[in-house]
Amino acid sequence: MRALIYNRTLRLERSAANPTPGHNEALIRVQCAGICNTDLELLRGLYSFSGILGHEFVGTVVQGPAEWLERRVVGEINVACNVCDFCRRGIPSQCRNRTTVGINGHPGVFADYVCLPTRNLHAVPAEVGNDAAVFVEPLAAALQILEAVQITPSQRVIVIGAGKLGMLAAQVLKLTGADLTTVVRHTRQADLLSRWGIRAADINDLEPEGAQVVIDCTGRAEGFASALSLVEPRGTLVLKSTYQGLPSVDMTQIVVREIKLIGSRCGPFDAALRLLQSRLVDVEALIEARYSLDDAPSALTHAAQQGALKVLLDIENTGNGDKKS
Amino acid sequence: MRALIYNRTLRLERSAANPTPGHNEALIRVQCAGICNTDLELLRGLYSFSGILGHEFVGTVVQGPAEWLERRVVGEINVACNVCDFCRRGIPSQCRNRTTVGINGHPGVFADYVCLPTRNLHAVPAEVGNDAAVFVEPLAAALQILEAVQITPSQRVIVIGAGKLGMLAAQVLKLTGADLTTVVRHTRQADLLSRWGIRAADINDLEPEGAQVVIDCTGRAEGFASALSLVEPRGTLVLKSTYQGLPSVDMTQIVVREIKLIGSRCGPFDAALRLLQSRLVDVEALIEARYSLDDAPSALTHAAQQGALKVLLDIENTGNGDKKS
Repeated sequence: MRALIYNRTLRLERSAANPTPGHNEALIRVQCAGICNTDLELLRGLYSFSGILGHEFVGTVVQGPAEWLERRVVGEINVACNVCDFCRRGIPSQCRNRTTVGINGHPGVFADYVCLPTRNLHAVPAEVGNDAAVFVEPLAAALQILEAVQITPSQRVIVIGAGKLGMLAAQVLKLTGADLTTVVRHTRQADLLSRWGIRAADINDLEPEGAQVVIDCTGRAEGFASALSLVEPRGTLVLKSTYQGLPSVDMTQIVVREIKLIGSRCGPFDAALRLLQSRLVDVEALIEARYSLDDAPSALTHAAQQGALKVLLDIENTGNGDKKS
Repeated sequence: MRALIYNRTLRLERSAANPTPGHNEALIRVQCAGICNTDLELLRGLYSFSGILGHEFVGTVVQGPAEWLERRVVGEINVACNVCDFCRRGIPSQCRNRTTVGINGHPGVFADYVCLPTRNLHAVPAEVGNDAAVFVEPLAAALQILEAVQITPSQRVIVIGAGKLGMLAAQVLKLTGADLTTVVRHTRQADLLSRWGIRAADINDLEPEGAQVVIDCTGRAEGFASALSLVEPRGTLVLKSTYQGLPSVDMTQIVVREIKLIGSRCGPFDAALRLLQSRLVDVEALIEARYSLDDAPSALTHAAQQGALKVLLDIENTGNGDKKS
């Protein structure tokens, strides 16, 4: 099979061995995959990753337990041990012995095939097309904000970092009825948000220490510093993105203003599928471009451009790099 | 009156003007005051402070509303505006227009007299002596941990930073019944903790990512990094001390392990008085030394020594620097 492999350098392997499903695993033919900022971070050295990249996908089960055969599926990225204290507590996403698809210790989905335990799979309803289903993983991550913090309809909420994940976070937070503002840096971001009726603002036009909840989707030290300046005393700051290096943080502010910081990672796939099925979230507007797997290196370069939204890999078609603007 | 004034340099003013109480304020003759790490931070430049230092005290009302006259009192340090959104929400400690006694915009208590609004005062019960009452402010700050986080009896809890505040935090946390460990660096700290039946441990003997709740009382970047390494995924890290400068923080760890960080500041005086009255907390063992106000500069030098516990200023006695070891 074809597989996009990173090992200090990036290469498309054209005759990688197909993976073989073990007990309670399914072999999935990947149809479409999405590029996430984490993929770009891995290329910059996060976790000293090597292997097949990619963790956002939709595909069809071609081998494995009968009840899953030929079903169109998305898959949770944490492959859990099922025995540690976190697995026993029902939090496999924090399994102490986990591997993570395309991130740490488990082959990723930028390939023709991937193997996953069936307990990681979620069947995709017919109403949810592949272009929407490929967003289930990041949409679930956005929903995890609401698993971690109770956001009430009367609160002032700010999303900072209107990129791939921030746009999903903003849409999810809009559903709470909260007084939501998303910080933008480009007209294009503001235009997209206005489509969904979400207020966009320049960082300098926002009242300092005015929001009860601020979601930092920037993954940058300056973004975090801005987020901290926007959250009110006793407010909550949710961190949604990994950060490069070790940012300098004004910890004294956190103490004196009694801020709550909450790190947030993977979220509920079933809820993400429900929101897509009921069309309460518009993910397809976030598609920036499509590439074939053969053009995956160009796709990653495109995804790394400032302001780029979701770049998809159309894996089932051995296309000609049919970009969509 | 005498007053210890900091304005780039420290000086004992012997004929400072007595403060005059305004409407709904009391003039308090300070009997005993305690030196806090924040006082030492102010001397190092925190908040560009200048004025009379000190915020931990017990004293007697000598002028003001009749119902307070001659009562022995302790006082909350946040002087609130009573009109901002935080005051209206019943959180005067986070008043947006507050001054803070001996810290920011309000004269401190390292003086013969101080004025405070009567709503900041709490009468001290007869059973609580001055040596105990002077600990009400930091004990309340320790209790604020329990206002911010629900700590249950079956949780593993670690206190890191067994100094003045850490020793109070450990004692308060012991009352929850939780499985408590306090990280120590000196035998003296371990000895004191063993008096109270609190387990002491070297940082290197603790299981990484094993505690549900970690309280960082170190105020140091390395302390915070250790605290982060000790807290389990989805665990809570409470920050109790201000930090020098802007520590570098492994924010990605916070995101990936979904850690909750909670800044914590001033706490409930009434609860602190109840615990002292019922002798559930032993504060007097923390008294390291006593100095007269005339020897306040030496007292501050003593308090700044590595491992020093509580240094008191015995203000009502114009003593001869009668140190107690």
